[in-house]
Amino acid sequence: MTVSLDDLPLRDDLRGLRPYGAPQAPLPVALNVNENTHPVPEHVASDILDDIAVALRDVNRYPDREFTELRRAFAGYLGHDLDASNIWAGNGSNEVLQHILQAFAGPGRTVFGFAPTYSMYPLLAQGTGATWVAGTRHPDYEITVDEAVSQVRRHDPDVILLCAPNNPTGTPLPLDVIEAVYEAARGIVIVDEAYQEFAPRDSPSALTLLEGRPRLAVSRTMSKAFAFAGARVGYLAADPAFIDALRLVRLPYHLSALTQAAAVAALRNAPTMLAMVDEIVAQRDRITATLEALGYAPHRSWSNFVLFGGVADPAATWRALYDKGVLIRDVGIPNHLRVTAGTEAETTAFLDALASIGSAS
Amino acid sequence: MTVSLDDLPLRDDLRGLRPYGAPQAPLPVALNVNENTHPVPEHVASDILDDIAVALRDVNRYPDREFTELRRAFAGYLGHDLDASNIWAGNGSNEVLQHILQAFAGPGRTVFGFAPTYSMYPLLAQGTGATWVAGTRHPDYEITVDEAVSQVRRHDPDVILLCAPNNPTGTPLPLDVIEAVYEAARGIVIVDEAYQEFAPRDSPSALTLLEGRPRLAVSRTMSKAFAFAGARVGYLAADPAFIDALRLVRLPYHLSALTQAAAVAALRNAPTMLAMVDEIVAQRDRITATLEALGYAPHRSWSNFVLFGGVADPAATWRALYDKGVLIRDVGIPNHLRVTAGTEAETTAFLDALASIGSAS
Repeated sequence: MTVSLDDLPLRDDLRGLRPYGAPQAPLPVALNVNENTHPVPEHVASDILDDIAVALRDVNRYPDREFTELRRAFAGYLGHDLDASNIWAGNGSNEVLQHILQAFAGPGRTVFGFAPTYSMYPLLAQGTGATWVAGTRHPDYEITVDEAVSQVRRHDPDVILLCAPNNPTGTPLPLDVIEAVYEAARGIVIVDEAYQEFAPRDSPSALTLLEGRPRLAVSRTMSKAFAFAGARVGYLAADPAFIDALRLVRLPYHLSALTQAAAVAALRNAPTMLAMVDEIVAQRDRITATLEALGYAPHRSWSNFVLFGGVADPAATWRALYDKGVLIRDVGIPNHLRVTAGTEAETTAFLDALASIGSAS
Repeated sequence: MTVSLDDLPLRDDLRGLRPYGAPQAPLPVALNVNENTHPVPEHVASDILDDIAVALRDVNRYPDREFTELRRAFAGYLGHDLDASNIWAGNGSNEVLQHILQAFAGPGRTVFGFAPTYSMYPLLAQGTGATWVAGTRHPDYEITVDEAVSQVRRHDPDVILLCAPNNPTGTPLPLDVIEAVYEAARGIVIVDEAYQEFAPRDSPSALTLLEGRPRLAVSRTMSKAFAFAGARVGYLAADPAFIDALRLVRLPYHLSALTQAAAVAALRNAPTMLAMVDEIVAQRDRITATLEALGYAPHRSWSNFVLFGGVADPAATWRALYDKGVLIRDVGIPNHLRVTAGTEAETTAFLDALASIGSAS
């Protein structure tokens, strides 16, 4: 007897949906999901392993539910006079965002973001029963203070998700837009700084705005700059009362002892882990320059990827690159594709493959 | 400026709630959360560490979203002709249950269980917006086929959670009750076998009922018998269509590469990991016999803990044990306390401390 999903009493709002997921194809050059393609340096991996070995001695016991040492380590890494009481963490920043939406959104409430933005936001909103409301951006994906305020006032959302710099476009978000959105909003304002470490060194983080703004939270991830996507560690900083709200919705012991140990050890090695960031930024800028030379229209990016327009047939170009062993991402924006900045060799492989396909439309 | 949780736009249904959590007190003898108090043997820990070292080489990449190798390993461990397509896993069985409720319960739907039962069930139901409906048990916490069927027919729930053996009572659940509940139910039936490995060797698992029952799922955890509470690994077996439903609600990459590696290695060492089970069962039976001798009323248990009645003042007894360095659990049932079967030394410490307090009421 073969049963299908339709034979099960699935929730009505899930019927006909497909699971989220970028293709996980074993190609030699994978530049599709904005990973850091530089492996963790061997001596750091060895240091992480030592801490995991210690954690394994007590792995028969539940982990520290409050992950106090890890929160202290994140506060130390972030600076800005934060301490452990300002910090939350989860199994990837998706889980951190899910906790926020479970506490402050959910059924009958709305979640707002300026589209196009991170494709998980609508899914996270819907997954917690909230309604996703998409705002708009200029054709170059930038946002001005006046238009941001006007959209926020019009939609009056319960939670606002600001991706800064924005995925999948790479667009920076000036702090004055965040300040103005916060003032205009009644609800929670999340600044998702997943790619912040790839922004210019002198560009301030939204962490500088936290003081005196209890409805504001700044989320981060170790997946990108820290080359730790496989370890699944996202985190955020906010007022201690905000953190208390997240304690109400998280599953007890949601962060394993191994995850806590690995993240603490990685944070202890932050300077080494982050040493690859400059190299990635250099490759990103090289991609932008070369795409322009090839006649494409790359967008300004402060992240570890570049969204570029001027692609006559994105599906065909994506496929042609795939056939040459290079995996990039069709994010569904007409005439655009997105590529992650890899190592120098991977970036060269991508640029050479693209050049060999022919120039832009 | 100090802000409190009440100053934030929290969801109305969360106002006034307190976070879940057993006290995490650093006492010498902690027998409060049904952990396996035997550490993972050193050579197994070393084998696990080797696999984690390999996983760290690629930790800059996202993990296998389908955790195929781990699902294959669980299928092998469970037997019963299961394969990877029958398996799901999450960060603890709480997350696995949350996935089920997100797919099949949620707002407007009901989740049913025979109370008293695992205290997370109502919280998981409410956390996903569903309504928790508590059924009843006999005074000895057993359930008969007729009464189970009658309650299920009366409440007609969307999801039924059967904890077998039951937490916090230890009560076994005969397979004929599960079969009858499945037949009587329109919705999903989950058998939570978190403690199954502590049941008599010849008692059949609900896994034997899966064939031909696509609405049935059997969940397990590595936290108890496998001494892996700190690693956060729960899993379940069900029809492949059931697994497809869970793919719709899980966050992408919810299981870290380190978790996957650790669990695969632990499963490879299943015979060694499970060697402690017999010793724990022996201590459990010793607890039961000694409690009876002391005049308490322990309930029949097929798990790694014992719930006992006849406690005149549970809070006072709990505190007196605490002061002697022994942490057990007041689960909120009048005149009862619950204790986990520890090592022989821990069990002796508990029994001696209890005896020194004086006999039962």
